[in-house]
Amino acid sequence: MEKFSAIYTDLYQLSMAQVYFEKGHQDHDAVFDYFFRKLPFEGGYAVFAGMEDLLGIISNLRFSEEDLEYLKEQGFKEAFLEYLKNFKFNGTIYSSREGDVVFPTRPVLQVEANIIEAQIIETILLNLLNFQTLIATKASRIRLVAGDAKLLDFGLRRAQATGGYYASRAAMVGGFNGTSNVIAGKEFGIPVSGTMAHSFIQSYDDELEAFRDFAEGRPKNCVLLVDTYDTLKSGVPNAIKVAKEMEARGDKLLAIRLDSGDLSYFAKNSRKMLDDAGLEYVKIAASNQLDENVIKSLLEQQAPIDVFGVGTNLVTGDPDGALDGVYKLSWSNGKPRIKISESIVKVTLPHKKQVFRIKDKNNRCIGADAVGLRDQNHIGEMFHPFEPYKSMKIDDYEQEPLLKKVMENGKVLIEKRSLAEISEYSLSRLSELPIEYKRFNNPHIYKIGISTQLREEREKLIQSHKNSLK
Amino acid sequence: MEKFSAIYTDLYQLSMAQVYFEKGHQDHDAVFDYFFRKLPFEGGYAVFAGMEDLLGIISNLRFSEEDLEYLKEQGFKEAFLEYLKNFKFNGTIYSSREGDVVFPTRPVLQVEANIIEAQIIETILLNLLNFQTLIATKASRIRLVAGDAKLLDFGLRRAQATGGYYASRAAMVGGFNGTSNVIAGKEFGIPVSGTMAHSFIQSYDDELEAFRDFAEGRPKNCVLLVDTYDTLKSGVPNAIKVAKEMEARGDKLLAIRLDSGDLSYFAKNSRKMLDDAGLEYVKIAASNQLDENVIKSLLEQQAPIDVFGVGTNLVTGDPDGALDGVYKLSWSNGKPRIKISESIVKVTLPHKKQVFRIKDKNNRCIGADAVGLRDQNHIGEMFHPFEPYKSMKIDDYEQEPLLKKVMENGKVLIEKRSLAEISEYSLSRLSELPIEYKRFNNPHIYKIGISTQLREEREKLIQSHKNSLK
Repeated sequence: MEKFSAIYTDLYQLSMAQVYFEKGHQDHDAVFDYFFRKLPFEGGYAVFAGMEDLLGIISNLRFSEEDLEYLKEQGFKEAFLEYLKNFKFNGTIYSSREGDVVFPTRPVLQVEANIIEAQIIETILLNLLNFQTLIATKASRIRLVAGDAKLLDFGLRRAQATGGYYASRAAMVGGFNGTSNVIAGKEFGIPVSGTMAHSFIQSYDDELEAFRDFAEGRPKNCVLLVDTYDTLKSGVPNAIKVAKEMEARGDKLLAIRLDSGDLSYFAKNSRKMLDDAGLEYVKIAASNQLDENVIKSLLEQQAPIDVFGVGTNLVTGDPDGALDGVYKLSWSNGKPRIKISESIVKVTLPHKKQVFRIKDKNNRCIGADAVGLRDQNHIGEMFHPFEPYKSMKIDDYEQEPLLKKVMENGKVLIEKRSLAEISEYSLSRLSELPIEYKRFNNPHIYKIGISTQLREEREKLIQSHKNSLK
Repeated sequence: MEKFSAIYTDLYQLSMAQVYFEKGHQDHDAVFDYFFRKLPFEGGYAVFAGMEDLLGIISNLRFSEEDLEYLKEQGFKEAFLEYLKNFKFNGTIYSSREGDVVFPTRPVLQVEANIIEAQIIETILLNLLNFQTLIATKASRIRLVAGDAKLLDFGLRRAQATGGYYASRAAMVGGFNGTSNVIAGKEFGIPVSGTMAHSFIQSYDDELEAFRDFAEGRPKNCVLLVDTYDTLKSGVPNAIKVAKEMEARGDKLLAIRLDSGDLSYFAKNSRKMLDDAGLEYVKIAASNQLDENVIKSLLEQQAPIDVFGVGTNLVTGDPDGALDGVYKLSWSNGKPRIKISESIVKVTLPHKKQVFRIKDKNNRCIGADAVGLRDQNHIGEMFHPFEPYKSMKIDDYEQEPLLKKVMENGKVLIEKRSLAEISEYSLSRLSELPIEYKRFNNPHIYKIGISTQLREEREKLIQSHKNSLK
């Protein structure tokens, strides 16, 4: 949809970059960790999304002449602007696979680059990964309760402006089947889908006539919206009439859509009316302020709904609105770095790191990821990152390294998968996760541990900062 | 930032449009009302935003060759695609002024066009107006509690992807003073602002050295982040040292920024340390999960904070996520149209309409808007739209018509104002609103009424639909 510019960033990235440049720090190496602290929706996992798309965006980030002109007006200096003219991200990125289930505290992705390049991409990286991970996680929760029902994203009109474009993509990663959003369909190869609006029917003097015209125009793909005037007295009877007329022409009505009222009540009564008319094949689609809770309840009531159109609550990630993902410096200028905080859970993990998923001999995830130094390839014991007296021996378990090099010196290393492939991968990873972590309410808490070496390295840095304050 | 394509829409708009085209309805006239049903944030008003920008976008919407190719693959037919090749919005739009305070039920904007053009722009109109009105309203609430403090949008990293771009614009409409978002700054002419990140300090072995380098690089515009290691033991003392060094060079430290811990406690203690060092001029900025409630509380505690940086909660419109704005057909093919619903509050208002703000002789808004037919220029009595036994005589009041023609036959009629002008207008309109409607909690409910004529017209349409169901 759009070409991103390198000024899709926060001003302070450029302010800091100019100081780095003037002080000769532009070639200092830096490692930043992308991670989040809290799972959204009080759920037991998150679905990592946005990464593969982001790599392409990052590798194409440049400052245009117009951008540089603007920055000059903002007071940036000539020599630095000259440097930005040749800006290109030349760094290396290690990342979890897009679609994998991810958890708080542990790095989801690591950026290794000179400090200026690493800072400039921070904002766009957070912006796109935080949002898509939020929405893919929401979509995955909806998929888990919806079973085999078809799930469609109808959210564009209530989306947070152009954010809706990425919401449609992320919904697919989390297990949706299609979208009403035409531009996202085109750009991301998402199946597009749609029915009709009330306005279509209102624009006719008569509902039946509107249905007839619509059915004639869409013989193979007709969904009739039945609640404009009166669902059971007018909409469904008229839809049945038109379905019979379609049958006479050798066509089949695909579905009716319910968009108001008690969806369980109307679905059951509509189903009966359709079945009594010999229209067992006509499906029922439902929409109207749906989310995972409403869908779960509808299916528990055995509402015969085959297709759910989910809008606002999906694309805005209601009620959370944002994933709290951050990007923290863990290494620079040849040394591990740490951020101290009064709150222990905000003290960062220094160093270049690797993350392992801990599995039993049958390759079943035991519900734990362990973080070690990057050159460790097996962890004997893992410690709670904030309560170090809690530990667990994991020496005998299988340990799957999760961070893979996906970009090197600015070049994308992985082959781009289709959204369908990413979604399938996500479902397979989700299926490896024990059911307790997928429970809808109060899920089991997935364990995150750090290795002895990482714990000791962190402890050393904390002590040295304490000493410097004396 | 981007050029919008006409496929920035829901698929069903195009499906319906094809049927209209094939049935020869493409020249049927249609009027759609844009309105919302519920005020966000349990507030007493909303700030209308996005409209002036939207007009430019709508007037430039086209289908590219590539778009048409894509639609062909989706099964759209040649003759219709040929029609879309020449698509251009040629309609007329009546609208409230951007920045005005607006209320539920009454039309905020009316689109009058042939039915195909009116449908195709529906999605982008809802997408951009719903979101920007939500965020401008949130920003306005924050402005109301923040008094004269400077308010900066820091939200891009947690924004809903590219939605952050429009959030920065809307924040200005609602009364913010600037943004960290460089691309929004450039495109919308918003003052950009920013400080430094923890990573800058962490990348040095020593906080003081980091502060010194930053201050040297930004002699006129230096804000130092003081909470990386220990706010009162390290950050503020180092900032004071650097401020004194700046003074010796003839420069002045602009501010310090607090980003963690108890902001009231740290602001008071930092203020005292700065003042004791003779640095009364150094301001204090605060950030970290702020919203109108936190800012209100901080100011009630008399925390000496001069600048608030607001991120996530502003740009995602937390906790509401979306404004429930809709676009409903009120006229087509020469006749008024209505949507019936089991829920009376969802029955729409038919006809081409005008909205009046009711004012006393001193030009003070009395807390009511009345909706009449478009050719009415004064309303004698207004009726509650859903409880018709409630009415109010307004004959003796001033009545300000609110919907002005802003686009005619696809041509923008109004001169584009700067965001600063829109924001100023918004504040002036807000000042005309009695204080009860601006109360933070449980505000007074603004009255919306409909004229006798509109009530009778609606009643007729409801009756005729009732009769058709018999």
